[in-house]
Amino acid sequence: MSDQKTAVFVVMDGVGDRPLKELGGKTPLQAAKTPTFDRLADEGQNALMDVIGPGITPGSDTAHLALFGYDPITDYPGRGPLEAFGAGLETKPGDVAFRANFATVDSNMVVLDRRAGRDFEPKEQAELQTALDGIEIDDVKVRFIATVEHRGALILKGEGLYAEISDADPHEAGKKILTVRALKPEAEKTAQVVNKLMRVAHERMKDLETNKERAKKGIPLANALLLRGPGRHSDVPPLPVRYGIKAAVIAGGALYIGTAKYVGMEHIPVEGQTGRIDTNFDNIAKKTIETIEAGYNYVFVHIKATDNASHDGNAKEKILAIERTDSMVSKIIEKVSDKIVIAITGDHTTPISVGEHQCDPVPIVFWSNFIRPDSVKRFSEIDAAAGALHTIRGIDVMPLLLGYSGYIEKFGA
Amino acid sequence: MSDQKTAVFVVMDGVGDRPLKELGGKTPLQAAKTPTFDRLADEGQNALMDVIGPGITPGSDTAHLALFGYDPITDYPGRGPLEAFGAGLETKPGDVAFRANFATVDSNMVVLDRRAGRDFEPKEQAELQTALDGIEIDDVKVRFIATVEHRGALILKGEGLYAEISDADPHEAGKKILTVRALKPEAEKTAQVVNKLMRVAHERMKDLETNKERAKKGIPLANALLLRGPGRHSDVPPLPVRYGIKAAVIAGGALYIGTAKYVGMEHIPVEGQTGRIDTNFDNIAKKTIETIEAGYNYVFVHIKATDNASHDGNAKEKILAIERTDSMVSKIIEKVSDKIVIAITGDHTTPISVGEHQCDPVPIVFWSNFIRPDSVKRFSEIDAAAGALHTIRGIDVMPLLLGYSGYIEKFGA
Repeated sequence: MSDQKTAVFVVMDGVGDRPLKELGGKTPLQAAKTPTFDRLADEGQNALMDVIGPGITPGSDTAHLALFGYDPITDYPGRGPLEAFGAGLETKPGDVAFRANFATVDSNMVVLDRRAGRDFEPKEQAELQTALDGIEIDDVKVRFIATVEHRGALILKGEGLYAEISDADPHEAGKKILTVRALKPEAEKTAQVVNKLMRVAHERMKDLETNKERAKKGIPLANALLLRGPGRHSDVPPLPVRYGIKAAVIAGGALYIGTAKYVGMEHIPVEGQTGRIDTNFDNIAKKTIETIEAGYNYVFVHIKATDNASHDGNAKEKILAIERTDSMVSKIIEKVSDKIVIAITGDHTTPISVGEHQCDPVPIVFWSNFIRPDSVKRFSEIDAAAGALHTIRGIDVMPLLLGYSGYIEKFGA
Repeated sequence: MSDQKTAVFVVMDGVGDRPLKELGGKTPLQAAKTPTFDRLADEGQNALMDVIGPGITPGSDTAHLALFGYDPITDYPGRGPLEAFGAGLETKPGDVAFRANFATVDSNMVVLDRRAGRDFEPKEQAELQTALDGIEIDDVKVRFIATVEHRGALILKGEGLYAEISDADPHEAGKKILTVRALKPEAEKTAQVVNKLMRVAHERMKDLETNKERAKKGIPLANALLLRGPGRHSDVPPLPVRYGIKAAVIAGGALYIGTAKYVGMEHIPVEGQTGRIDTNFDNIAKKTIETIEAGYNYVFVHIKATDNASHDGNAKEKILAIERTDSMVSKIIEKVSDKIVIAITGDHTTPISVGEHQCDPVPIVFWSNFIRPDSVKRFSEIDAAAGALHTIRGIDVMPLLLGYSGYIEKFGA
């Protein structure tokens, strides 16, 4: 195997766009001043990328799973485990995880408020978490963490658990919490555990100090748990096992951190990284360089501001987010250009004109000091079509990045 | 079905490269004078090719298997059968084959020299081969052939044999030959046969004339056999069965001949074909033309000199090998241009700057007197990116070549 370099993977969330009248028919990437991205496009290899497949609009979770080299269909564990990892709990292969809500029920388990009023103080979240975390149902252990407002993540740990169960959440107020059924025979045990858990959680929650206070104030009680998005942590090997690499994630948003940790990356916190346009780009650059120099083999850097601007229909802010990321990358290149293979891309297209994820492919550029150049001169959705890599899929990114970085062994003799 | 032509497939081993400073930023293919390849690129259809897949560095064996139209992962039989075919023995579906070494052991089967001194005279090889070829263990027949120095190939022929067994070779001197275990239940019989074979081979080898002489000279005895790289000949149909074609291989290196014969090609020997830069390019051209005119439907021509130069970091010799192959192809085209569809490519990239196989794709051109041209004018890694075929995989080559040559029937009515 030849010299190894650190693979640096920069994702601008939702950066792909469509021509905009207000930008004279240009996309935000075309309208932005991006001297660094353009240099990388000029000297490197470009492609358009269908992150999942042609015509498929990627979700943020499936997109990142594909970009990390996992099959977004067969290897997708559902939202539960990704949320749990993002919240700070860790699932292991075989665990089943859920997104959880505090809710309000009456004595017949009829749902009165699916979000228990939505607002929670840290003290309330702490008491509810303590009441729920550590419950045992038969031989299954329950882990629970409260996250934002009425939300949390819940994990079932034990033998023979499966995610194929029906929903307990009636999805509207005025209806009773539903009895969960197994959707395949192997999931029978899990369905029974969840049904028992619904009652045990209610018993443990209803008389807490939090609820006495909430009753006094006349705000909805947090006396039940609603679970959704069940997912089972699969046996797919994480990145360190699959490729023998030490991988890091530098991101602001919980879902991105969660998905990255699910595949075995270590989260490197950055002061001032917010996942918004006010994120501290300088600190992100500094920490990325430090992480490269600390000997990590792969560093994933996620910038969320581009997607927020897209959802808000704010072209000016999207351009600003792109230009700030360009400048951030220039600082990284300046310091460690000889030590890295770098790829710049987005996880999907979120056109300013639509404000939601769409199916259009995104541009991607691969650069290192040895990579063959192609005829592309600028980094954009339009220019990338002439790239030497033509059209690739999200799942091709990891082999390409790690292949060029020297972490994939020769296949055959 | 339309008129049929002969498919001619020319592979320059390891021809792909990266921009080189000493060539003014050109690759060897760009720096070489290749009027014939350039004419074919100008008049034909070009692509970049991931021989195995994006980011995957191909081995020589898996690369050629893919280029012959076989799935390099599921259809790969392991090195044993490919070596056996290269050495002149033929495996049949169900046979299990190994690479073999003569070794030196003491009376407790402790390995003293894994290569028995490495040097062997033809007379010694012949005596050892006679002693080992034809051994029978239960209902399993053993075929053995001595090849180069201490090396050979060994085949087990019989019912119910599998390659999933552990290694007998302790891989260092001073350790005892290991007892082989089955790695799946079906391989139990094979493991037992190999364990018995280790003892029988030792008994047959230890008192040979060869060893009496070696003992006198004080050089290591060849009194044991080490086996590695077990592989089972799969049930995948060979080319003549799969496509109804008569296929030939013109190559110097044993591995290429072996892989080609494994998939059903006949080896056409060429006087002076060495697999080095001194190979007789004129004779190869002549024999290729003869083979085309003799009615073969497919002729695979392998040139090894490009890869040797790459491994040696010798850009000048790589350019020379490319230019000589170009001139060889011009002679073929001159004689039989109306009778052929020809493809020119490499099996992988071996950059001069690295000296080892790397993951970068290789250029490929398809030419016949009827093929649609594209915008590419020169044959190189950089120019090929603009080809009409965009990016293809190694496994696509055979259908393209045979499709254009008229050997693949219409699919549907």
